Amino acid sequence: MADPIITLTTDFGTRDGYVGAMKGVILRICPGVRVIDLTHQIAPQDVSAAAAALANAVPYFPTDAIHVAVVDPGVGSDRRGIVLVSPDWTLVGPDNGLFAPLWSQAVADYGPDRLVAVELTDPGYHRPEVSPTFHGRDVFAPTAAHLANGVSPATLGPPISDLVELDAPSAACETDGEVVGQIVHVDRFGNCITNIEAAQLEALGPPDCIRIRCAGLELGPLCTTYSDVAPGEDLALIGSDGRLELARRDGDLAAETGIAIATPVQIGPHLG
Amino acid sequence: MADPIITLTTDFGTRDGYVGAMKGVILRICPGVRVIDLTHQIAPQDVSAAAAALANAVPYFPTDAIHVAVVDPGVGSDRRGIVLVSPDWTLVGPDNGLFAPLWSQAVADYGPDRLVAVELTDPGYHRPEVSPTFHGRDVFAPTAAHLANGVSPATLGPPISDLVELDAPSAACETDGEVVGQIVHVDRFGNCITNIEAAQLEALGPPDCIRIRCAGLELGPLCTTYSDVAPGEDLALIGSDGRLELARRDGDLAAETGIAIATPVQIGPHLG
Amino acid sequence: MADPIITLTTDFGTRDGYVGAMKGVILRICPGVRVIDLTHQIAPQDVSAAAAALANAVPYFPTDAIHVAVVDPGVGSDRRGIVLVSPDWTLVGPDNGLFAPLWSQAVADYGPDRLVAVELTDPGYHRPEVSPTFHGRDVFAPTAAHLANGVSPATLGPPISDLVELDAPSAACETDGEVVGQIVHVDRFGNCITNIEAAQLEALGPPDCIRIRCAGLELGPLCTTYSDVAPGEDLALIGSDGRLELARRDGDLAAETGIAIATPVQIGPHLG
Repeated sequence: MADPIITLTTDFGTRDGYVGAMKGVILRICPGVRVIDLTHQIAPQDVSAAAAALANAVPYFPTDAIHVAVVDPGVGSDRRGIVLVSPDWTLVGPDNGLFAPLWSQAVADYGPDRLVAVELTDPGYHRPEVSPTFHGRDVFAPTAAHLANGVSPATLGPPISDLVELDAPSAACETDGEVVGQIVHVDRFGNCITNIEAAQLEALGPPDCIRIRCAGLELGPLCTTYSDVAPGEDLALIGSDGRLELARRDGDLAAETGIAIATPVQIGPHLG
Repeated sequence: MADPIITLTTDFGTRDGYVGAMKGVILRICPGVRVIDLTHQIAPQDVSAAAAALANAVPYFPTDAIHVAVVDPGVGSDRRGIVLVSPDWTLVGPDNGLFAPLWSQAVADYGPDRLVAVELTDPGYHRPEVSPTFHGRDVFAPTAAHLANGVSPATLGPPISDLVELDAPSAACETDGEVVGQIVHVDRFGNCITNIEAAQLEALGPPDCIRIRCAGLELGPLCTTYSDVAPGEDLALIGSDGRLELARRDGDLAAETGIAIATPVQIGPHLG
Repeated sequence: MADPIITLTTDFGTRDGYVGAMKGVILRICPGVRVIDLTHQIAPQDVSAAAAALANAVPYFPTDAIHVAVVDPGVGSDRRGIVLVSPDWTLVGPDNGLFAPLWSQAVADYGPDRLVAVELTDPGYHRPEVSPTFHGRDVFAPTAAHLANGVSPATLGPPISDLVELDAPSAACETDGEVVGQIVHVDRFGNCITNIEAAQLEALGPPDCIRIRCAGLELGPLCTTYSDVAPGEDLALIGSDGRLELARRDGDLAAETGIAIATPVQIGPHLG
């Protein structure tokens, strides 16, 4: 059987040694584990961005992988530490909405009865001294390593049911044959990802008739990929996560136009 | 036998979860693999820089390592996905010049008949649904994982022979006892690497007599290492990849002088 | 038994392929090793920052892990390459102070007789051709891999005893019931870590009476964690490494106030 996998997602960067400390703690408790970096480049305290990155990556992993995420503005307060288990993943981190998109999806896929949520209260699975400012090292890393060693989640603390929600933008709404949404993520390339699902666009009619307005730009019909337009031209397409995405070929649409998170996006078949 | 190795080279950064998704796909198909990050910090769309990074790193790896590289401005167009195999490496990615330096070297070392180049056409080795904007996740990651599982490259698609070349600067040219080249890479330290090989300099005479002109600076004779000069002083030396390199000790020559990629460099034994 | 572990700490960034080359060299010599990134984002040439990152991370690792660190302004000069062994770790890199904090701690914990320090003089454990500018690839990576293969440190070269010290700020000093120290590290969040130990503060009286002055700010009493104050407010607390830390909740204290490395910090029970 393959060695267990623990992935790490943080806003720590790597230069301070904080991530290194977490890796050391994990390997000392579970010497055979494979530690996989997802990212340490989440903007400081940006719980929503970390939740999006996790939602983009975790579903592709082996279902027995354990995913630790630490973007934790409330560290040391009364916010809870949690472990969540679904048939698809095991998640360890603070209860601040980081895991909300994955949890919602799992509730939809399996129903709440097949899911486990536990608060990390048993200090026997934490480091002997817990710093009030670094639960990544002292609570979440050792918890994940014990889980990788086969410890049952139920051992770690009492079950809970009222997880903290993410303060997310409301879903795109549909009225009068139009869809109104917004930009919810800007990626490294300056591509602007919306909260509008492919299925919502399909309901508006054939891709050829779709027109999108955002920040004074009018885009459409829908393209398939970036190279459908000439270099420097703008386009709209269904991105790799199944949502409407706006982009500038070989350019950085966000930096060059000012489109940003929360910029409104309006779509309809007969605009203008 | 040691677990198989797959390395990753991308321009994705890590914060969006794209790299994490690729790692998940790989580990789900080949659960025992070791995934090794080469870099995810290639500047967006910079195929040449990625090709240089690969040429700097791949030759040092075990020959059975599989190297996935995704800097892919043409994703979803008719550019091909490929796997290349030499006695020294296996490479997976888009056919856009990313692998051209390694391929040229292998042709020189082994001749074309010992090399394999295959187009990735068999969808059975891709994810069931292939996004037109994310072949890293849906084509290249699963291909590499299947190769790590022992699938033969020839199974993945038809052989090809006309690989895309890199749009690289011409080699440094020699005339009248001088060599004229250019800067082809600026590294993190601001060291400026040229396309002039050590052997070309040797032909000009002993290191003591070499003089180099670049952007108004006159450098020489050749040094051996950075600390041969005082802090803040400039020097020229043969870098760790065997090419002429210009540097400022304890400084950032590129940032402080404006020397950049394509800046001309002129070398001779009797300049000035 | 678990596969051996080699960690890497450098100022190379990753985009140039230098780190990739080191990983390849390691894996070719010791095919089963697990290579773990601590960081490659140390600021160029910043030996002190690397020493701090190592001191933050190395003590948490399994004691048989091998830690390679390459922040090496003197590469190719007569500065020595070294391996250090304590009951807690094995360290490989240049003798320039990188390992001084870990070494001092080990001398305090175990006494010098239980420690090993060796100069890396035997070329049989280096790459056949050693570039004078890249000992990371040609000396330190192969040395670590041979150690992971079970080679004895004593085989690598002669013992040495006079390690280079780090040019570190003097410890915080105490006079007349006050402690005067300075900022020694600013982390990714802009938190400002001082050289004042928790024990020094305790000697001043109960946490409620402590007042801290730094760059015109007056802070105190001591808090336990960031969320003890309102968003945007400043606080002082004992950080996760046991030293006094100044921070701005949900902000970047360093960027927003100009507090930086070497800024003085004054603490007493009865200031103002």
